[in-house]
Amino acid sequence: MDSAILAAQGGTDPTRFVLVGTSHAGNVGAAARAMKVMGYTDLVLVKPRHADVTSHVEALAMASGALDVLAGARVVDTLAEALDGVTWACATAMTPRDFGPATYAPREHFATLATSEHRVAFVFGPERTGMSNDDVYRCHACLSIPAHPDYGSLNLAQAVQLLAYDWRQAQGGWPVVPRTVDPQLADGAAVAGLIEHWQRTLVEIGFLDPAAPKKLLPRLNQLLNRAALTTEEVHILRGIARAVGARRQRD
Amino acid sequence: MDSAILAAQGGTDPTRFVLVGTSHAGNVGAAARAMKVMGYTDLVLVKPRHADVTSHVEALAMASGALDVLAGARVVDTLAEALDGVTWACATAMTPRDFGPATYAPREHFATLATSEHRVAFVFGPERTGMSNDDVYRCHACLSIPAHPDYGSLNLAQAVQLLAYDWRQAQGGWPVVPRTVDPQLADGAAVAGLIEHWQRTLVEIGFLDPAAPKKLLPRLNQLLNRAALTTEEVHILRGIARAVGARRQRD
Repeated sequence: MDSAILAAQGGTDPTRFVLVGTSHAGNVGAAARAMKVMGYTDLVLVKPRHADVTSHVEALAMASGALDVLAGARVVDTLAEALDGVTWACATAMTPRDFGPATYAPREHFATLATSEHRVAFVFGPERTGMSNDDVYRCHACLSIPAHPDYGSLNLAQAVQLLAYDWRQAQGGWPVVPRTVDPQLADGAAVAGLIEHWQRTLVEIGFLDPAAPKKLLPRLNQLLNRAALTTEEVHILRGIARAVGARRQRD
Repeated sequence: MDSAILAAQGGTDPTRFVLVGTSHAGNVGAAARAMKVMGYTDLVLVKPRHADVTSHVEALAMASGALDVLAGARVVDTLAEALDGVTWACATAMTPRDFGPATYAPREHFATLATSEHRVAFVFGPERTGMSNDDVYRCHACLSIPAHPDYGSLNLAQAVQLLAYDWRQAQGGWPVVPRTVDPQLADGAAVAGLIEHWQRTLVEIGFLDPAAPKKLLPRLNQLLNRAALTTEEVHILRGIARAVGARRQRD
């Protein structure tokens, strides 16, 4: 079953995020939040610097509304333990390793991985050093986030956020909430009526010379077409024209 | 000119990131880093809570290698000032506003925006409240990051990172560094030679009955095909077969 549907039904998405040797508790909390906003909850921590990181004050602060993901995180001693039940582990590394698995951009790899039956994990190394070679060798693919060649050092939680987002998108994504009220677009007749109304008014106030109109009206027409007016906006602009005309008559 | 090429040549990418009323100095620093890893440097801060945020200790800590972006950030009083030179301002908002610009998922909007000549800005509201309606009304489009319907609250710097990434991808992206050494894939003849070698060895050690080989060899062949062996690995596996055979002869 599609994992997005699974998650929406209260089931669990099997995707796991594994943080190895994380130093900063805040990063663990931020990673939990980054996962949760994309619908992932399975977090495993391999030998974090702070053994009590799931209740560390900085982790709690950064987790914000993802305290449940943080509290549910499993702390283990080795990457091997963290990968139980996982059939496809993706290492993350800025620099590829000799003898390591092939390196891909996330989107490229996810396009095929999302159609597989694999139970997937994403593995992130310590902040300063990145993943060790031994840990990379345990993985099936290596993901490299395409970043600026001169400065490609993403914060750990940012890397988690980008992969969670790309993976969710590859799995079908979440819907974007449309604007509450769909605008009622004005049709060509309504716009033509508006132009005609303004034409009369502009002649009345002496802005437009009917004997030499030049290209004013077609230019206004194009401007209004680009703006893709709503019916409501046509009413507003006709109301203004009416007020200008009334003012003119009082003068 | 393509902005990625521009930036690579030391020119400036005109894309601007505008943070309105940011409360946490750390978020400003993290946003600077998130921009820089994707090759963007133009940061404008509208009325940040800390007037000295560009030199605030928490901002410096989170900016890491993006201190130049942080130091170069402009602090202004209004969104209007922040948008000088910008022709297409994208609001970010989780919930669409009545009368606001149309809401899009970033990738959807960027596909067309990246082919335009617009000078683009991305505008982010305060952490707690998001953008005010008045600020949204100044913008040309509204972007909503597709997140989990039950918990879609991204950290500010995470939202900056995702948009910077998606926008950079839409602009052509940065290359991913391939694995240092490309593996020399073994051809079918090499794999067939390996299988034959192991077949002899397995018969010698009594694991394979040549009178009733069942499907052992085709299964091993399929396993090796899936693994897509390198020439080096064929040598290793033949070396093991040789050692097993030699051991057998000594016994």
